[in-house]
Amino acid sequence: MISRHPTSCASMAEIMSVLFFHTMKYKISAPRDPSADRFILSKGHAAPILYAAWAEAGLFPVDDLKNLRKLDSDLEGHPTPRLNFVDVGTGSLGQGLAVAAGMAYVGKYFDQAPYRVYCLVGDGEAAEGSVWEALQFASHYKLDNLVVIIDVNRLGQSEPTALQHQMDVYDARVKSFGLHSIVVDGHDVSELVKAFDEAASVTGKPTALLAKTYKGRGFPDIEDKDNWHGKALGAEGEKIIKHLQSQIKNASPSVRVSPPAAPAPAVHLADVTLSSPPAYKLGELLATRLAYGTALKKIADTNLRVIALDGDTKNSTFSDKLKAAYPDRYVECFIAEQTLVGVATGMACRDRAVVFASTFAAFFTRTFDQIRMGAISQSNINLVGSHCGVSIGEDGPSQMGLEDLALFRAVPTATVFYPSDAVSTERSVELAANTRGICYIRTSRPNTAVIYENDAQFQVGQAKLVRSSANDRVLLIGAGVTLHEALAAYDTLQQKGVNARVLDPFTVKPLDEAAVIQHARVAGGHVLVVEDHYQAGGLGEAVLSALALERDVVVQHLCVREVPRSGPPNALLDRYGISANHIVSAVDRLLRL
Amino acid sequence: MISRHPTSCASMAEIMSVLFFHTMKYKISAPRDPSADRFILSKGHAAPILYAAWAEAGLFPVDDLKNLRKLDSDLEGHPTPRLNFVDVGTGSLGQGLAVAAGMAYVGKYFDQAPYRVYCLVGDGEAAEGSVWEALQFASHYKLDNLVVIIDVNRLGQSEPTALQHQMDVYDARVKSFGLHSIVVDGHDVSELVKAFDEAASVTGKPTALLAKTYKGRGFPDIEDKDNWHGKALGAEGEKIIKHLQSQIKNASPSVRVSPPAAPAPAVHLADVTLSSPPAYKLGELLATRLAYGTALKKIADTNLRVIALDGDTKNSTFSDKLKAAYPDRYVECFIAEQTLVGVATGMACRDRAVVFASTFAAFFTRTFDQIRMGAISQSNINLVGSHCGVSIGEDGPSQMGLEDLALFRAVPTATVFYPSDAVSTERSVELAANTRGICYIRTSRPNTAVIYENDAQFQVGQAKLVRSSANDRVLLIGAGVTLHEALAAYDTLQQKGVNARVLDPFTVKPLDEAAVIQHARVAGGHVLVVEDHYQAGGLGEAVLSALALERDVVVQHLCVREVPRSGPPNALLDRYGISANHIVSAVDRLLRL
Repeated sequence: MISRHPTSCASMAEIMSVLFFHTMKYKISAPRDPSADRFILSKGHAAPILYAAWAEAGLFPVDDLKNLRKLDSDLEGHPTPRLNFVDVGTGSLGQGLAVAAGMAYVGKYFDQAPYRVYCLVGDGEAAEGSVWEALQFASHYKLDNLVVIIDVNRLGQSEPTALQHQMDVYDARVKSFGLHSIVVDGHDVSELVKAFDEAASVTGKPTALLAKTYKGRGFPDIEDKDNWHGKALGAEGEKIIKHLQSQIKNASPSVRVSPPAAPAPAVHLADVTLSSPPAYKLGELLATRLAYGTALKKIADTNLRVIALDGDTKNSTFSDKLKAAYPDRYVECFIAEQTLVGVATGMACRDRAVVFASTFAAFFTRTFDQIRMGAISQSNINLVGSHCGVSIGEDGPSQMGLEDLALFRAVPTATVFYPSDAVSTERSVELAANTRGICYIRTSRPNTAVIYENDAQFQVGQAKLVRSSANDRVLLIGAGVTLHEALAAYDTLQQKGVNARVLDPFTVKPLDEAAVIQHARVAGGHVLVVEDHYQAGGLGEAVLSALALERDVVVQHLCVREVPRSGPPNALLDRYGISANHIVSAVDRLLRL
Repeated sequence: MISRHPTSCASMAEIMSVLFFHTMKYKISAPRDPSADRFILSKGHAAPILYAAWAEAGLFPVDDLKNLRKLDSDLEGHPTPRLNFVDVGTGSLGQGLAVAAGMAYVGKYFDQAPYRVYCLVGDGEAAEGSVWEALQFASHYKLDNLVVIIDVNRLGQSEPTALQHQMDVYDARVKSFGLHSIVVDGHDVSELVKAFDEAASVTGKPTALLAKTYKGRGFPDIEDKDNWHGKALGAEGEKIIKHLQSQIKNASPSVRVSPPAAPAPAVHLADVTLSSPPAYKLGELLATRLAYGTALKKIADTNLRVIALDGDTKNSTFSDKLKAAYPDRYVECFIAEQTLVGVATGMACRDRAVVFASTFAAFFTRTFDQIRMGAISQSNINLVGSHCGVSIGEDGPSQMGLEDLALFRAVPTATVFYPSDAVSTERSVELAANTRGICYIRTSRPNTAVIYENDAQFQVGQAKLVRSSANDRVLLIGAGVTLHEALAAYDTLQQKGVNARVLDPFTVKPLDEAAVIQHARVAGGHVLVVEDHYQAGGLGEAVLSALALERDVVVQHLCVREVPRSGPPNALLDRYGISANHIVSAVDRLLRL
């Protein structure tokens, strides 16, 4: 606590004491037991007091706290699930509450278990819109097993918060968002005990406990003073510790941890399968987004914990197919994508559910911070982005996902599926359900031909060679609509006497680097990548990375290089240089290099 | 209006009529005149009625509306500034209000002109947290020249909104967020006229006009019915138009457009310069983030419209240096990054200000959707991300910007500066201030040596060769802390008899592709890129893209390949494989290829 953020910890010391040693029910033997109460420290910079609470509860020796922020210690600057008592990484502010709401949703509606969820939010971070989205979600779904504590310590990092100690304003806001509100003196233990007890008796709505506190509470000359955020106390430290110790009335209190009231049900999430194999005809035209909906419903047939979430686009992403079959396993998050991803993350915690959250590919940009934190959190969530690229047509650039591959490729724990027909889409869904980490499936709006047999086998990181001959002179790589453009170009090239091979990567991350290298070599080192995505960070650069150490290979990259406009899908593919015609001309040029 | 989203337009028809032909003051001759009232259609999918209003006002022939969503028309599916009456692209929901608040801030505090700002928000999009962030900003800064209209038409895209027609809940919420609230029948013209007049008389706070409306208003069998979102009316269209026409009482009303009350002041934004050149000593150690603060203050010395914004990290990004010198030109956005970028965007509209918005590089992921839309909006904003990479040290992965280059490289209109010392940082700031589009400056936390003379010249897209000889065998490319690691590796390699050349790209986008190609060839086709960023989408892949069509070049890419942990900066550089030691070993391997 001395090392960093001591003042932010001091404001919430009494809250933590009451939560950990009066209110919460949990097990030291299994800190993340499914039946235990959950605690999310949304203001992750107060990590030291979280670590201190668990040490005090007996999980590990208090002396270990001295390893805070050392390279060989899991007691990092902000909490991560490398620690066995942390569910999600926090430290990017405003994200904890949506996760907590997801946990509470599962607890109330799926587990139907008595465990409760507590989330501590800083007043500074309560300025994040994501907090208000999550409050709305929590009250809409009547999550009375959720308590949000706002630590109103008045001071942000660089100046006082906008609302400072206006407890009445906080009170009016959370009430208007549908919560039961209790304003307390956050340093008064008996008030806190009463408030948490009251929260436990509230039904039909979550409770907000608004704690008026002081930053640096009890630190002489520092309490409630600006300019002490995130600072080690230095030479002052020993003096302050002595002062605090002098105020302790009971130096060795008996710490009592209450066990969970009842077990949460056992759930089985492994081996999720499609209830029936893909059933399409070769050449049949349909959108991969539609096949997504079909597959989602099929995996829900075989596993009761498959849950779909969407942000009011379910009739476009086709997640509504799951809702139609299993309305209780669909969670509408309305137009609040940060909540969509946050709630999904919370639902998946402690292996309670297999979640699929969908919206337009473009709108996952709204949740990049949540996804980034999802990697740190070791989250197991599946995200599905429809309407990628210019091929959506007339709705125009605001609705086109043209940077989603760059986003998800930059997530270390991500697997990125980019299926090109209905059969591979169904298998993407099945594979994603069984793959740890963050899975992303990119689906397309236009109808495209089925190119794989229904019994085709797919694996993460295994590309499919869809056209080839013994004397190919160029390797074409495309995915989604551009794979079909590549196939059309293949035909034209063949008529012109140029043999090409065509590779479907299936997953962009991990990319089947061995296949890319092998086929690039066979095709004389001429590679053309074509994608419905901007130039940076997508399939083209993934291929370039795979070939980085290959001498004697050249790569022509066709992609969208400017902000596109509205128009018919095929006209846009042509205008932005990623149609079959452009592939054919580019191959001409490439073969002359 | 018939083509797409007719029902979403119908709910706001009376609102638009009153705004455009009673309330707003503007010029048909110059729709984006600085002195005119601003209107932002945050629910961009209702574009057709926006286009219809301007046509009706006389800006272009009504007949042009038939070109809606055609490839050769600027009347796109969602509004973009390709149209001379649109300030920012909308269509990704929940973004308009922060932009409007930025415009209102400039109007009230900088222009001190009587123009007013109107922003129409859909009820569906009011679920976005970004809307509540922006409301908080607007009331905190007492923006009484701002009116937000919420079109409460009860129906979202795929189902009713969470709040439906609970006007009392909307009322309580916006009041608790500090706005003057007026609930009206959104189809009653005289109520609307009165409400907008009332809004004009409110001082000290923005007004929220909560309009109870019906989706598909006046469309027989469609009004207030689900499942009509975003659908063309098809065969019903003609019938509905006839029905609507039959209700028109005055078929050819005289349309009157009121001109602006007073001119906004002329401002001069061009030729922003540092008030004094960089003044460092070669080898002097200081962080580029600190040099950013110094330069920011220096350009503010020379131009009164240089404005800085931050999200409560100003004492870390050093934007507080501007605040200290010119408190009125600093705008605190608190911990609400979406608002930070949205407000900056609004401030820069109509060339009113040169804005610099800063926070940790990692937290720009929270605003990727705003930045993406900023490209569509042709925004001229400067964003500065500090604390990039593992070199921040003990705070851990949640605070490390490791995907920001991927983010900004995927923005078509972006220029990405990645300065490696204090001198180049100061010049980055000066260049960014004079460069159109979205400029991003990536700054670092650790102190690094000054390597450029104070009079060194820098240009966008021009790399600097910092080490070279006649017989170099490898090209090392690094930026920020990794350029300094490359320089240390250069020394070691030289002792081992291996001559290297070292390139500082200065801008990652546009990358100096000619320099990369030239020096790669000279160095025998051996290239090593080292960056404090994840593998995808960063400097390494930018270099690979530059070299894509070069045969006989190999690229070794050193970067962060997993979620890092807390620890001392130098220990982390080494652990994640981007230190001088790792460069030396990698060169050994590379030269054997």
